[in-house]
Amino acid sequence: MRMYDIIQTKKQGNELSDKEIKYFVKGITDGSIPDYQISALLMAICLNGMTEHETFLLTEEMMHSGEVVDLSAFGNNTVDKHSTGGVGDKTTLIVAPIVAACGYLVPKMSGRGLGHTGGTLDKLESIPCFKTELTSSEFSSAVETCGMAVISQTANIAPADKKLYALRDVTATVDSVPLIASSVMSKKLASGAQNIVLDVTMGSGAFIKDLDSARKIAKLMVAIGKAAGRNTAAFITNMDVPLGYAIGNSLEVIEAVSLLKGEKIEDLKEVCISLAAGMIALVSNKDINTAKTIAAEALDSGRALEQFKRWINAQGGDNAFTEDFSLLPHAKLVFEYRAKSDGYIASMNTEIVGKASAVLGAGRTVQGESVDLSAGIKLLKKTGDCCHSGEVIALLYTSASERADSSSELLDAAIVFSNTAPAEQPVIYEYID
Amino acid sequence: MRMYDIIQTKKQGNELSDKEIKYFVKGITDGSIPDYQISALLMAICLNGMTEHETFLLTEEMMHSGEVVDLSAFGNNTVDKHSTGGVGDKTTLIVAPIVAACGYLVPKMSGRGLGHTGGTLDKLESIPCFKTELTSSEFSSAVETCGMAVISQTANIAPADKKLYALRDVTATVDSVPLIASSVMSKKLASGAQNIVLDVTMGSGAFIKDLDSARKIAKLMVAIGKAAGRNTAAFITNMDVPLGYAIGNSLEVIEAVSLLKGEKIEDLKEVCISLAAGMIALVSNKDINTAKTIAAEALDSGRALEQFKRWINAQGGDNAFTEDFSLLPHAKLVFEYRAKSDGYIASMNTEIVGKASAVLGAGRTVQGESVDLSAGIKLLKKTGDCCHSGEVIALLYTSASERADSSSELLDAAIVFSNTAPAEQPVIYEYID
Repeated sequence: MRMYDIIQTKKQGNELSDKEIKYFVKGITDGSIPDYQISALLMAICLNGMTEHETFLLTEEMMHSGEVVDLSAFGNNTVDKHSTGGVGDKTTLIVAPIVAACGYLVPKMSGRGLGHTGGTLDKLESIPCFKTELTSSEFSSAVETCGMAVISQTANIAPADKKLYALRDVTATVDSVPLIASSVMSKKLASGAQNIVLDVTMGSGAFIKDLDSARKIAKLMVAIGKAAGRNTAAFITNMDVPLGYAIGNSLEVIEAVSLLKGEKIEDLKEVCISLAAGMIALVSNKDINTAKTIAAEALDSGRALEQFKRWINAQGGDNAFTEDFSLLPHAKLVFEYRAKSDGYIASMNTEIVGKASAVLGAGRTVQGESVDLSAGIKLLKKTGDCCHSGEVIALLYTSASERADSSSELLDAAIVFSNTAPAEQPVIYEYID
Repeated sequence: MRMYDIIQTKKQGNELSDKEIKYFVKGITDGSIPDYQISALLMAICLNGMTEHETFLLTEEMMHSGEVVDLSAFGNNTVDKHSTGGVGDKTTLIVAPIVAACGYLVPKMSGRGLGHTGGTLDKLESIPCFKTELTSSEFSSAVETCGMAVISQTANIAPADKKLYALRDVTATVDSVPLIASSVMSKKLASGAQNIVLDVTMGSGAFIKDLDSARKIAKLMVAIGKAAGRNTAAFITNMDVPLGYAIGNSLEVIEAVSLLKGEKIEDLKEVCISLAAGMIALVSNKDINTAKTIAAEALDSGRALEQFKRWINAQGGDNAFTEDFSLLPHAKLVFEYRAKSDGYIASMNTEIVGKASAVLGAGRTVQGESVDLSAGIKLLKKTGDCCHSGEVIALLYTSASERADSSSELLDAAIVFSNTAPAEQPVIYEYID
């Protein structure tokens, strides 16, 4: 078998055989296929697509290219969740405790933020003493004793995907439905949970901008999960506006705890209850509406907050901050950002808002950069809200005033005012199972 | 400017700007763009194409990526010819002497054979003492004193094309009309002749299999040449059957000299007279039919043969072989290949016939391999000829009997017999100027 012929087949728009996909993934993993041949095939896949069968197989081979976490001891009781990325997305910090509080197990591997998007791992690292690097046995034992654990994805999960993603990132071949779906699902399947809920974000702050693409990716990921024998469902959620009001690591931890403590943050609550219900529905085989009632009860009763505190302890963290947010990293400087105009906020380009938070220090532009855990944006008004010219509509947290200047300029570009109220958008677009 | 954005633009099917193409070719030449980004762009070009303007610019930039031979001292009097490759194609050995015999200058750089195709350089090296490596000044002086010279393409002609071609060869991105056209033309333009005739071969022995593709490539190359200020024309010629009867280096030299001496080899003669006429028409501004008469007269009168002998001497060769072919390398072993069936030869897969010659020792599978200059095939019958089962229809020249066995098997696969005569095919399909 020759990589040349594999490239040629896909270039001509034909389906790759099972053997060819195995050969390709093996060659990525062991380094025997040179990058220039891999990237030629990636571009051919981008432009000519892949069949569902090819995508299943690519996912499965990438999943098996490294360690596959064995959670079979927990039977059907494990449930994972994955978001395709967004701005202000702190749902894991809320959803996992809700689901664990209901008696189901949430073993989760998370990633770091990059570009305009945040990552759960960075948020967790703003919690004093919290450990995100656990061994496999510490991970299993945390799940067993406390019902959940959220750790850094180990280096050896789906290494073929890691290599492929690094090449896609520099060859403009990221935005391919089968490549996105197989990348996400290879990692999720290797992480071992028997039930998987996907949060496919859509809008100006997400990688996926339109409902048609979101639907395609969501359906394909659900199909891949099911083909691999996992119960899988997906939500398409609104990322045309930041989720909640806090963007930035410790700021988002505060907002998550505030919601767990009963604060009213409508969009964030709706997404969290939906995702938690999706997870509960899958793992318990209950219908989604019953599951919603169960999830809401766990949150409203404070049981999810107690679960959250136990979890922080179980991973070495000090949960005192839940009663005193000043124990979290806090920014040296706070700047007020004021509305440029009277009227309604008609729209916020959420990718730019994410970048405005990143330039304050909350995000990174390349992998490996350190972030300022205290930096970020606290929005006071969002899309649909009415404000007066000069009114403070956001607070910028940072360590240097020039960062606040850059951030303000980005917000100027991101926020559009109008005399008329914008049409209301749903928080959840669709549920696919 | 970032290579990422250039790839993205072409992936989305949009036109690259002049600056982007310059940046790309500069980055290939100085090695600053990694191969994996180049190959991603090559695949995007293959699948999404290039406009004529992009192709002109790519050609021009690749031409200027290295040495550009300055033949301006010869004014408008220089004429070059290029074939896109074939089996039994010894036309340069005949056409260049015809044109030089008519008083025009033919400064030509040639290449080596690869895969199923032969190369003029290998053929010339079968001539005792003939030198194919000349300095620039030796090259000019040979052209000045003898009217022609055929040398090895110097290392620094269009280095960006060399790099690009090497990548195309391993990433299944060879068969793109704009990439083929720009590759050929960048080298031809850098070689300096003011007039250029292209022989676009088409059929089972050529890289281009159908008339539609051949026409596209021919028209594009002619347009590129004209845009660069060179008089350019193209012929589409038949390569569905080997040209002439000899395939292999010294065997083809013998056939070329035989034609120059007046032997009747119809298809080869027709192609050579046409190509020579095309060259004469361009350089002299005469119409193509007048040019044909002039070319035929130069051949039939023996003036082209005399020119050939002077040329061999001018490049250090001993032309005594023209009177005694035994002075050329000759094979140790000759095997007879017999017809498998009664009837007409309905078709010969000419690529496979080329491979049958290569396995005898006449060709190479990778660049840099040495070849057996004496090896090859002498056909006694070709497509359209009638033969009896068991009749000798080819002679195989080689150094080892097992090579003859492999070659015979390939010929078995290549040659199709039929009870009815195949439709006659033209030797020249089209002339494009």
